[in-house]
This record gives sequence, structure tokens and C-alpha cells, in this order.
Amino acid sequence: MAVRVSCGRDLHYCPDINTSVESATKDGFDFVCIPMVHPRYKREFIEGGAKSRQGPLTRSDLLLTSTDWGSLIVGKISPWIDLDSEVESTRKNSEKAFQEELAFAAHLTLPAVLMKLKHGKCVNAARFLNEHVTQGPNQQFWVQVPMRSPAEVASAVFQSQQTDEETTSWEDDTWKWWDLFRTICDTSKKIGLALELSADLPDEAVLRRWCGENIKAAILPTSIFLTNKKGFPVLSKGHQNFVKKLFDLDVQLIISGVVRHPEKGIRPYYQYMEHIFASRDPPDTVSAFAKGYEDFLQCPLQPLMDNLESQTYETFEKDPVKYSQYQKAIYYALLDRVLPEEKDSKVTILMVVGAGRGPLVRAAITAAKNADRQLRIYAVEKNPNAVVTLENLKAEMWGNQVTVVSCDMREWEAPEKADILVSELLGSFSDNELSPECLDGAQRFLKEDGISIPCEYTSYLNPLQSAKLYNEVRQCREKDKHPEAPFETPYVVRLHNVFNIADCQSLFTFVHPNRGLIDNTRYKSLQFSVTQDCVLHGFGGYFDTRLYGDVTLSITPETHSPGMFSWFPIFFPIKNPIHLVPGDVLEVHFWRRVTQKNVWYEWCVTKPHPQPVHNTKGRSYFIGL
Amino acid sequence: MAVRVSCGRDLHYCPDINTSVESATKDGFDFVCIPMVHPRYKREFIEGGAKSRQGPLTRSDLLLTSTDWGSLIVGKISPWIDLDSEVESTRKNSEKAFQEELAFAAHLTLPAVLMKLKHGKCVNAARFLNEHVTQGPNQQFWVQVPMRSPAEVASAVFQSQQTDEETTSWEDDTWKWWDLFRTICDTSKKIGLALELSADLPDEAVLRRWCGENIKAAILPTSIFLTNKKGFPVLSKGHQNFVKKLFDLDVQLIISGVVRHPEKGIRPYYQYMEHIFASRDPPDTVSAFAKGYEDFLQCPLQPLMDNLESQTYETFEKDPVKYSQYQKAIYYALLDRVLPEEKDSKVTILMVVGAGRGPLVRAAITAAKNADRQLRIYAVEKNPNAVVTLENLKAEMWGNQVTVVSCDMREWEAPEKADILVSELLGSFSDNELSPECLDGAQRFLKEDGISIPCEYTSYLNPLQSAKLYNEVRQCREKDKHPEAPFETPYVVRLHNVFNIADCQSLFTFVHPNRGLIDNTRYKSLQFSVTQDCVLHGFGGYFDTRLYGDVTLSITPETHSPGMFSWFPIFFPIKNPIHLVPGDVLEVHFWRRVTQKNVWYEWCVTKPHPQPVHNTKGRSYFIGL
Repeated sequence: MAVRVSCGRDLHYCPDINTSVESATKDGFDFVCIPMVHPRYKREFIEGGAKSRQGPLTRSDLLLTSTDWGSLIVGKISPWIDLDSEVESTRKNSEKAFQEELAFAAHLTLPAVLMKLKHGKCVNAARFLNEHVTQGPNQQFWVQVPMRSPAEVASAVFQSQQTDEETTSWEDDTWKWWDLFRTICDTSKKIGLALELSADLPDEAVLRRWCGENIKAAILPTSIFLTNKKGFPVLSKGHQNFVKKLFDLDVQLIISGVVRHPEKGIRPYYQYMEHIFASRDPPDTVSAFAKGYEDFLQCPLQPLMDNLESQTYETFEKDPVKYSQYQKAIYYALLDRVLPEEKDSKVTILMVVGAGRGPLVRAAITAAKNADRQLRIYAVEKNPNAVVTLENLKAEMWGNQVTVVSCDMREWEAPEKADILVSELLGSFSDNELSPECLDGAQRFLKEDGISIPCEYTSYLNPLQSAKLYNEVRQCREKDKHPEAPFETPYVVRLHNVFNIADCQSLFTFVHPNRGLIDNTRYKSLQFSVTQDCVLHGFGGYFDTRLYGDVTLSITPETHSPGMFSWFPIFFPIKNPIHLVPGDVLEVHFWRRVTQKNVWYEWCVTKPHPQPVHNTKGRSYFIGL
Repeated sequence: MAVRVSCGRDLHYCPDINTSVESATKDGFDFVCIPMVHPRYKREFIEGGAKSRQGPLTRSDLLLTSTDWGSLIVGKISPWIDLDSEVESTRKNSEKAFQEELAFAAHLTLPAVLMKLKHGKCVNAARFLNEHVTQGPNQQFWVQVPMRSPAEVASAVFQSQQTDEETTSWEDDTWKWWDLFRTICDTSKKIGLALELSADLPDEAVLRRWCGENIKAAILPTSIFLTNKKGFPVLSKGHQNFVKKLFDLDVQLIISGVVRHPEKGIRPYYQYMEHIFASRDPPDTVSAFAKGYEDFLQCPLQPLMDNLESQTYETFEKDPVKYSQYQKAIYYALLDRVLPEEKDSKVTILMVVGAGRGPLVRAAITAAKNADRQLRIYAVEKNPNAVVTLENLKAEMWGNQVTVVSCDMREWEAPEKADILVSELLGSFSDNELSPECLDGAQRFLKEDGISIPCEYTSYLNPLQSAKLYNEVRQCREKDKHPEAPFETPYVVRLHNVFNIADCQSLFTFVHPNRGLIDNTRYKSLQFSVTQDCVLHGFGGYFDTRLYGDVTLSITPETHSPGMFSWFPIFFPIKNPIHLVPGDVLEVHFWRRVTQKNVWYEWCVTKPHPQPVHNTKGRSYFIGL
């Protein structure tokens, strides 16, 4: 996340590059966007490549040092270039001029090239940029797209007499311009969006969809600024909020257009951006904890196959919410199970299965003290390294109240039966670290009327659009593995540059103790209603759990336990992005499969159109028992 | 292509397998389809895997030899099994029974297993079959789908009072059942369609769509047979024609249901199938030539980079149409260019560029004789091996009328200018063997008013559905290459197991001589209307050419030159199958790109939803100059 604003100045003309750069940097700007070639210098290409006009294409590269070219200048493609013109000669001249300017930008090693989409007809432009990008110059390409189409703006102003159908034609949804462009370019990471803000902001839902895109820059025309009482340029509340969201996405800003407050100059625009940046709310606990992990893919833990490291224990023990909820749950359970008149005679047997370095033991001891109940604790832990900590804590603090058992809970022969079984075996998707299998195994040493904390947990899913995550997953391809393997693996990830296509729905539920037929396979299908054009890249996975009574934990977006950071969501990708339109029903099927050795998920989108099933027989991902 | 009928007998009960097999083979049948387990033997599975009933699951494998099991028996999955039941216990019992029967079929090494879809709700069934198939038993799995849904048949019979909308619900289109099933199974080659014919055949367009599927078997219920005057079972004309089409696709037949002509027994059904098979029309010239090449992918020729082999020349010289059309074209050109009064004084200079082993030289000599005109011929050929043939023919037959030039036409310095330039450089997609580049180079030795034969050619495209070709392309994946490379390469292929989604449209046109600015890059988009639910797997490519006047050659389906076999179509695949629905507009963009060294195509589907461009910068396929 950026620690300061990065803001550029967009110039339509640039008669002298040194003066322009000097003046912009003096005003505080970090870079300038300038035309690479004089905006009115059209070229015609004849056989042999000669041009219709003699003389140099543009200013010399000697005017700036290569360091300055490479850090201060964003090159703009000539505005007359139209690779999708119906006129063949215009199209072909545009193709050649475009290639010429891209080549020159590569020659100068500019950090970014800016090209503007004037309409949604951009297939040929996308093809030519894609061709250039795959050649591998190490530059960013920023595609400038207006938030509202010129036609839409005009119709709003002139109250046009078009019918509804005409005014909502697809040309008007400029997100589709961008979607078409980047899809043709195979969602290349090098091609970013330069979103041009409109005076009148679209709906919240439309803004959220933009925030799921690879936005690299936001262009703020001076015309969208208001003037405050002191005569300085400011933005509406809505614009301020959106700009703050853009800061969260590390977007660079560009001030474009003529100065509307000539007496004040351009400098106040820059200063106002700094002001918005500084006036953001400080990050909440979870965001602060997640800093640096945004959209970073992690493979889910394999807690039964691998031992956790000390650092991992330490991190999770710091959670300010989780263990206080566990403590509360144990407290209520003790009060319910032991009447006040039994409090001195009846000893409750509590077993912590998977005790780690002891946070649940600590919570149980505190809960018993608060509840004024007698407690005998068994701390069962299979990781011998964590047992070292437990034994030390027992020696130093806990004493005989706690028995430390160095054993896999699936193999342990308990000397007595428990009243309460406490565990923290849940993963981001509830059962994905095999809590059901472990607790089913452990419940043999639970009394008939014994209880499990947690007593119930449920996984949740929602459909997501995220070009960012799509690219992150694609990057996980390994040479010797099936090319589709990374798309058949779930990832634990702090979801950030993401658009939620629809709200969460519950998927699989598990209840403990499980007194019926033990069968932890699951199968369910979910249907989501699509309300906007968008692209499906995968599904977010979450969970909630009832520990005891009404004491719960949740990481589902709608009910997230405030301040709890122990779990990031999980992400289930799909192999091929799927375009969705309003009115579509998105149907997905999920299976949880179990064999003697492994547990895995399979998933399959079947509507609006069927797709192949993902992760058949756990071929790309499974959790080992 | 099969040389005889393969026909099986479907049995609902099979009390004694030996008697059944014996009696069916005596009646002429090649195999029997029998229930693997007694159809009424439902099972319930409890923990530990024990069943509710004791005793063997089914008859012993000792009853037949393994050779007989492996060649005579198709095993049928129990009809009560419903993996998509809403009732969880039914679903779970069905899953286990299904796995049990599949495992037993693998144990017996049956050649095929038959399972029937009773409705379109088949996602879980597909998942379980897919899991089994990826384990790799070397068996076919036939999914039985009725041509008309039970609901549709009932509504036709009872004139149901459902509204139009209800009667055309998607459940009624049984193609969608199959499409959903095979798509979930990633279009596995092992999973074939067993199409159950209906008494009332659907529209021709619907039948054609079925013929683009991986049909392995056709089930003919005895109830769809009529009775002829002599009391024997026969099929309607429509059914006969459809069965003949199935024979072309190597489909095996299965006679199902009770004998409707008890006095005649089952044998006449089999004999009638043999009768239909024998009464098919003999194949036309092109089909006969193409035998064995159906849906077989070939890489397009690289004639400028590689030399053709003698065998290739020999094959193409046999074309009964192509050279007679060339001869006709030259004949008319000679008559037009030389008036009768000039016939003895004026010598026409004709150059064959790319003369190969001389078929065009021969055609020119004959044309001149027929036209009674004087001709001097230069035969230019770059392949030194073919020049051997040309020199021999000159020495033995042609004499001084012909000058053989062993040279690349792009480098040759001609001693005089030509009246007529004759070439046969066209590929399946017209310009794909670089005819434009070659002829543009050769036209420097054409007189101002000289002509080229051919004088014009155009490529054509239409969208195709073909699971067969999709699988063939996927199989071309090579270890060290980009996994998408096979999907970015066009293939020359005799299109066979294919459904034409829409008619051809013209794409790129080239005219010779080319007196304007030489630019052989092309860009065009085409739009096709979709009238049926279907799946796009790629595009068929074709061409036509005007040699001279109204003398033409064509391989486009609508205007194919009868009997000409020199060119199969070309197939441009797409990476991911795209589902299309009626009313969709399918838009595709094609580019022909040219550099100093290479020529290639790029293609990109942009509607109904955008897709990434294929073959960026010729990365997977190009033609070398």
C-alpha cells in the first residue's frame, strides 16, 4: 500500500518538454503525461514505409536523461489514431502510426503509455496492443476509459428523446469497452485501466465493479472539481470516498484539463489530493494485520500432514477476538452443565484436542475461574514441538489441573471420558482442515451427554470477479504439472482487488458430536442471481461457527466477527473466466469427497452454461488425512 | 468406415446369460446389452460398507469366458439408480451402487457400459462417471439419451394444456441433457452417446446437430418400426435416411424392446438393418477419395519452405476436375486475347509459376491445340526434384514449345514478358499457402495487359460444432510447447463428424494482377446468427476462385465443384468451447498478418462474449516466406 499520493499532470500540448516537467514537479506532481508525437501530426504510409512528410517524427530523446524519461514521463498515443475506423486507409495508417509510437515509447523506456478509448469499438486496437505487449517491453500500458460514455453524458445533458432501449445500449456501459479490450488481450497484467472520473458518479454497484479491475490510474478532469468557500478546488463527498477507495488499490492519480482557478494555479489540485489521502480513516484491526497480504495467494494449511511453526502459533495466539469467544463459550457451557449447588463437588472434564501452545487451555482455566466451577483439563497435541511449550506452561503455571498428552487425538486412549471437547481445527472454509474427521475420531472419548465446542460450523460461498486473482492463479503454473492444476486448487487469500458479484450463501454444515451415520461427504448446488454485466473468475469461501449457545465466530462478509484476523477467506478459481449478464442465474455445484486417505473438493459451474468439473478425484489438490 | 452392420440386442431381463447370448448371436446380433445386476436388486449401504441383503451382488464371472465378456456383453447400469435424487439417502445409495457396478464392469473388462438418462438433472451422475473414467479403465461408456423427452412425447400424445413456454422448457430439449453431461466430463472421448430414436423424428436441423456429437450407438425401440405388406418390420423413409447417416458415422445399432411380430421373431429386425446398410448410395468421388481421412487433422502445407514429395504430386494430378477447369480457363483466355485472324502470327507467352510435375503445362498445351492458337510456355519450378520430371517430359513430348526454368519464381529474371501467368498456389483457405505473395512477386514479368489465372480468390468461414475435432486438437498437445498451441493452429481436415452452426460467409479476397499498393494484410469481422442451442468448437475454412471469365473452382459447401478432391477444408479451433443459444449473434474477427519473413492468421471471438485473441503474433503457427 502506498505511503504517499502519486499524482501526475496530464498535458494536451507540450511545446517544450523541459519547461513542462520542471513546472509540474515544482507544483508537486510526480510525473507528466505528454503526447509522444505532435497531436496534429497525422501520417500516411506508402509502400516502402516512407512518410508523406519529411523531418523527425517527434522531439529528440536527447532532451531528457534516460532516467527522467524512465520515471517522469507517461507517453500519450496520438488522439487521431483510430485502429477501428470503418475507413480502411484510416485504419491502416492508424495501425502503422500506433506501432511507430509504441516502438518509440519502448525506445525511451517510458514507465507507461496512455491510450484513450473513444468508443466501444476497439477490437483491432486491442489486437495491436496485445501484439506489442507480448513482445515483452517492460512497460505498463494504461487504457483510458471514461466512467460514462460521451453518448450517456450528452443524453443526460440534453434530455435526448431516445427510447430507453437506445439509451441503455451496450455502447453506454463503458465497463464493457474495457472488458472487451482486456479480454482480447488475455487479461494481461501489463495492461491496466486508467479510469476517467465523471462529474456525475454512477451507482455504488457500478463503482464496486470498477474496483474489481486492474486500475492503475484515475484521471480527474479539472471540470469535476467544485470550488469551496475559499475559492479552492474540492471534490464532492462521493468523489472523495471513491478516491479514497482508489488509494486503497494503490491507484495513481492524474489531473487533466485546464486550470479552473487561474489565480490559484494547478498546485491546489495536487494539494487537495494529498489532503484526501491524509484524511482517510486509519485501517481497522483486520486491515492492519492483513497489510501486505492483499490478494496474496497462500496454499491452505495441511495441519494433519505438517506441523505448524512457532511463528504461526504466535501470530494466531494474538487474535483479540477468537480466544475471548472461546472463553465465553466455555464459561456458559460450565454454567449450564454444573448447577451452583454442585460447583464444589462436580469436576468437569475438559479436553482440548489440538492444544497447540495452549491458548485454549488458558481460556478454559480463566472461564472456570470466572464461572466458579471445578475443571480438569487434558491438553492433547500431536506436534512434539508445541508439547514442549505445554509442558513448560504446566510446570510454571497450570500445575496438576492440566494433563499434557503428546499424542495424535485419533490414536489417543483417554483414561476417562470428557464433558467438553474443545478444538480449534477450523479452516477458512470451515471443514477444509479436516475438523469433521478429527472430531468424529475424538468423540469416542466424549460422554453420552458431552458437548463439543464448536458444536456446529458452516461454509459459505459467493461468486467473485477479480482479474488480479485470475492472474495470480495463472502465475502458479508449474512446468511439470498439468497446466490447469493451479485453477483446481483453492487458496487462502486476503480478498482485496475484487468485486463481489452476489452475496454469500451457505454451503456445507457439520454438527458435533455426530451421533448419526458418519458420512462427511457433501454435495450441494447454489444459485446466484446476476444483476450486472461482469466476469466470473471464481468463488470466495468463508465460514461461521457456533461455539456454544449463541457464542459464534464468523468470517463471512455480512457477519464478520469485528477485529478477528485469524482467518482470511479462501478462493476457489475457475479455469476460464465466464461472462455473465444481468438476469443470468449462476449455478455452481460443490462436492466434498472423502476416502481413507484424502479429502478434497470438486466444483463445477453448470449455469448459465455448463463447464467441466474442477479437480476430478482430487487430481490437483487434496487434504491428507 | 464400417464394412458391415454392427448390431446389438438390448435385454431388460437376463435370467440365463448363456441362453441369451446364444439366442442373440443365432439371430445375427453382434452383442447383447444386459443388466449387470438384477434390475430390482436395490441396495442400502451402511457404515463399514455392508449391504442390507446377503448373498452375491450378481451372477458369477465364471459363466462366460473373459473373451466373451470382453466382446459380446454391454453392461447396463441398474435402472433404479438415480444419483441426482433430491432424497439424500437415495442419492447416496445410488452413488455407492453406481460405483459398485462400474467397478464390476471394469472387473469383467466389458467393452462398454450403458447408462440411461431419465431426465436433464444429471450433474452428480456426470461427476461420478467422470471420476470413474479418469481412473482409466479401457472401456467405453455409453450414455443413453432419448431423442425426445418423455414430457415432450406425452404432451404430443395428450395435447397437454401446458402453455407454450412450459412445453418448450429446457428439460424438453434432450440434446441439453447430453450437452450438460459430456461438458461436465470435459468432453471425454471415452464417454459416447447412445441415442434412442423416437417414433416421431425431430426437425432436420435437430438431427444434424446430433450428427455433430460423439454418437457411439443408436437404440431403436421395436415400437418405432412399421409393418410392411409382407408383415415384416420396416422403418419410415425418414428413419431409414437417418440410420444411413448413422452408418456413415460408424454408429453401432441396438434393437430394444419386445418383438412386435412374434411369428417372425427378432431376426427380421437385424436383417432389416443389414438391408438398409446394403441399400446406401455408393460414395461420391470426393467421399471415396477421403475415405480414412474423416476428421483426421493435417498440418497445412508449407510449400515455400518444404518441397513436395512425388506421391503428393501424383495424388493431386489425379483430380478429375481441377485441371480440366484450368484447361478451360486457358482456352477462353487464348480465344479472348488472340483474334482468329492473328492465330498464326501472334504467339502467346504463358508462364506456369510453380509448375510441379507439369499438369498445368499439359493443360496449356491442350488448351492451345483446342483453341488453335500459338503458345510459348515457360515452366518455372523451384523444387529440383520436380524439375527432373519436367525436363524429361520436355525431352520426350513437349519439345521446344516449353522452356523449363529451375528457379524460385521470386528470384527468376524472365527473358521476356508474359501474356498469361498460370499458377496453382491456392490452399484450402485460398491465400494460406501464400499465393498472394508469390504472384505479387511474379507479376513483374507480366505484360501491362497480361492476365493471371487465377484472377481472383476468396476465403470463406462458418462456425462449427464438433466434439470429435475438439478432442483431436487437444490430443496434439506437446510437452515442451505452450499448452494452448494446438488450439492456435489451423488444420486441413475432411470435416465429417461435424455440425454446421451457420452457413459460410466470405472473408478475404485477393485479385491478380495486383496493380495498386501491395498490402496483403487483411482484417475483417463476420457475424453469424445462431438458431439452435449448440457449442462452438471452431470455424471451418474454405475458398473459391475465379480462374478466368466464369470458370471457377470452389470447396465452399454451398458451391463445391462436383468431384474435385484436391482440397479438404481447413479448421480453425478455439481454445474453449463456447455455448451458444438461439438468438445469439456470434461475432468473430480474423486478421491476416504479414512480415518480411512470415504470414499468419489471428482470430478472436468477440460475441456473444469476448474471448482472448488466438495466435498472437503467429506464436503458435505461421507460414514462412
